[in-house]
Amino acid sequence: MSDGTTGGTPAPAEGRTAAEEDRLARVGLTWLTEPGTRAVHRLVGRAGPVEALHRLLDGEVADARLREAVRARLAAGNPREVAERALEQTERVGARLVTPGDDEWPHRVRDLERLARGGTERRVDLEIAPPLCLWARGSWPLAEALERSVAVVGARAATPYGLHVGSEIGYGLADRGWTVVSGGAYGIDAAAHRGALSADGLTIAVLACGVDRPYPVGNTALFDRIAETGLLVSEWMPGADPLRHRFLIRNRVIAAATCGTTLVEAAARSGATQTLGRALALGRPAMVVPGPVTSAMSVGSHELLREHPRARLVTGVPHILEEVGRIGTDLAPPARGPQRPHDLLDDDAALILESVSRRGGNSPDALAARAGLDIRTALRKLSLLEQLGLLARRDGGYVLPPRPRDRAEHA
Amino acid sequence: MSDGTTGGTPAPAEGRTAAEEDRLARVGLTWLTEPGTRAVHRLVGRAGPVEALHRLLDGEVADARLREAVRARLAAGNPREVAERALEQTERVGARLVTPGDDEWPHRVRDLERLARGGTERRVDLEIAPPLCLWARGSWPLAEALERSVAVVGARAATPYGLHVGSEIGYGLADRGWTVVSGGAYGIDAAAHRGALSADGLTIAVLACGVDRPYPVGNTALFDRIAETGLLVSEWMPGADPLRHRFLIRNRVIAAATCGTTLVEAAARSGATQTLGRALALGRPAMVVPGPVTSAMSVGSHELLREHPRARLVTGVPHILEEVGRIGTDLAPPARGPQRPHDLLDDDAALILESVSRRGGNSPDALAARAGLDIRTALRKLSLLEQLGLLARRDGGYVLPPRPRDRAEHA
Repeated sequence: MSDGTTGGTPAPAEGRTAAEEDRLARVGLTWLTEPGTRAVHRLVGRAGPVEALHRLLDGEVADARLREAVRARLAAGNPREVAERALEQTERVGARLVTPGDDEWPHRVRDLERLARGGTERRVDLEIAPPLCLWARGSWPLAEALERSVAVVGARAATPYGLHVGSEIGYGLADRGWTVVSGGAYGIDAAAHRGALSADGLTIAVLACGVDRPYPVGNTALFDRIAETGLLVSEWMPGADPLRHRFLIRNRVIAAATCGTTLVEAAARSGATQTLGRALALGRPAMVVPGPVTSAMSVGSHELLREHPRARLVTGVPHILEEVGRIGTDLAPPARGPQRPHDLLDDDAALILESVSRRGGNSPDALAARAGLDIRTALRKLSLLEQLGLLARRDGGYVLPPRPRDRAEHA
Repeated sequence: MSDGTTGGTPAPAEGRTAAEEDRLARVGLTWLTEPGTRAVHRLVGRAGPVEALHRLLDGEVADARLREAVRARLAAGNPREVAERALEQTERVGARLVTPGDDEWPHRVRDLERLARGGTERRVDLEIAPPLCLWARGSWPLAEALERSVAVVGARAATPYGLHVGSEIGYGLADRGWTVVSGGAYGIDAAAHRGALSADGLTIAVLACGVDRPYPVGNTALFDRIAETGLLVSEWMPGADPLRHRFLIRNRVIAAATCGTTLVEAAARSGATQTLGRALALGRPAMVVPGPVTSAMSVGSHELLREHPRARLVTGVPHILEEVGRIGTDLAPPARGPQRPHDLLDDDAALILESVSRRGGNSPDALAARAGLDIRTALRKLSLLEQLGLLARRDGGYVLPPRPRDRAEHA
């Protein structure tokens, strides 16, 4: 099936280590197929990136649409050559490639696997698998910068009210040592970044284009400051264009890489609500700032609060810290990576844990129903979660353990 | 124990019918003890108002505090004489007395018995029993005016935003044929009343003083217009002062007499949230309009939305009608009084019904836990509720039947 002229099995490595081959293949795959493609993610999971790239180039994939997409892309170049040039350019623009093998890989994005397995996602075509690699510009190690982080996102056409609140939240979170993550857009995103910067805090812009040419250009001065003190991050190689569909693909990384997502202002059916939807689907704290009911820029926010029982109304930083404190401090203590209790959980246990409501009503029956599991499985997982200290029994039901904030404030 | 000089067993009726005796006794009791006193309500329930008044005057009551309160009050007059004068004055000021025996008695207030029996109320001393009688000024029959009604309450020191929203909601509800009920205070109350009046709609002010001298005097012109086209209502006889504690006693009637309560603006820990608390305790739709998080006048509103899972965020009249439509149309159809399915429910069944969440998770276990009942009782009541058509089974749990609004709009 291979077409030797445009792609085909690449030549063997010339003095490269296996790790280097792995990185090169990830970059090639990211270029060859849009980031987050589920079929590619599954293939990499089974065969590793190097072999996955081989198979894609040889047309040895079951998914006809993916095969077609790859064939079309190959007309534009050879992925290995593209990847080699991309890595050179990465170095030239002062950025670096981060892959799952690196210490600074943000392990939380792995939770996207749950979305990619379906169930919570209706638009099955959407790219929602974890990233294969990330580009970073800025000196902070990525994982460390994201350890205690909150996404603050919202409308581009924000109102003065929204800009004020976004900026205050950015400032307040940064002032308390939390990293403010957003998308670098006009409006709420920029307000949140600026708020964090004005507190001399850490902020990360996750982009939908190359980290060397952050978009929009009107925010260039802001991006420069972020790169100096924080991080610019992207799934796309240097030079990549901010294509429209990439913003939606990008949003899943903002939701997955942070401890929780806060929405400040969103119009009805706006893209700004999508990141919050991802956070909800991931079982992450999904927080929404209300606004005047007379403002079109709060219609989407209020809709979310009305429609999603797990979307939580917050009015400022103390409320946000109540929500994310649990994850940021308790479940992600200094021991990072696979040692976190969360990482020991299989899907069923994770589903149960996500189904626990702060509002009570967490009987085994109710939890089983919400998680979509049979009662026997639910009881087994509840017992596991209890042993791990992630849940406690109370009044015939289950509750989340006390929040770390209560303790921390008396420390 | 009787003290013949100040009270004692009153003389037998002089040519009065039993119904007239009943009315006179209710007025006497209302004056002798503050409205809503639980011990008095229980006594009236057991012995009827005439005998209850006798016993109170004879000091034949177990509750020492009540006995003491009655003794103190008797120094100010004889309740039968006070009641007779009050009824004369009622006629003079163009008002009327309404008692549970009258066709226009608003039967929904009977639900206050549930509160009075305790359980949901922490401040056990508070007067929360149903009213013994009500005064009304205005030509509409009270029950009919309250049939499809929504309470709209909020801060006195409202912001321009709150006044605008309160007025819009008052207008919109009245425009759709709903009666707007509020407390006649400055701020949100007045805005809601005015909104209803400007739609040529029906509005009711439930006062904490006599209907002949509505408070505050600054709203006199407003009260006059309400009395002309709607109703002024009170538990206190004409001439009664708007004593501070009476506003809180009054609030329970606003919550109980209406199909649901909407809160527009409330500061932290403000009295304005109390009416909504009563609606929550009664299992009535309890709706809250959010506002800017930067406004002190929305702090109490947001707190309620965060703390009470059953408090529902609404942004305007369509959302409010979604909530109250069910009760106003479906459960309170033309057939009024004891024929409503609701009235057939005992406390346990009512508790179960109130525990059903629109958000799902209504397994028998979860409902039993929320209602505080054992599972066997819960299952029995669920079966009853299903037979009455007040609940339907779905996916191993229970749901409320489809909302009448969905049907009405296609009618």
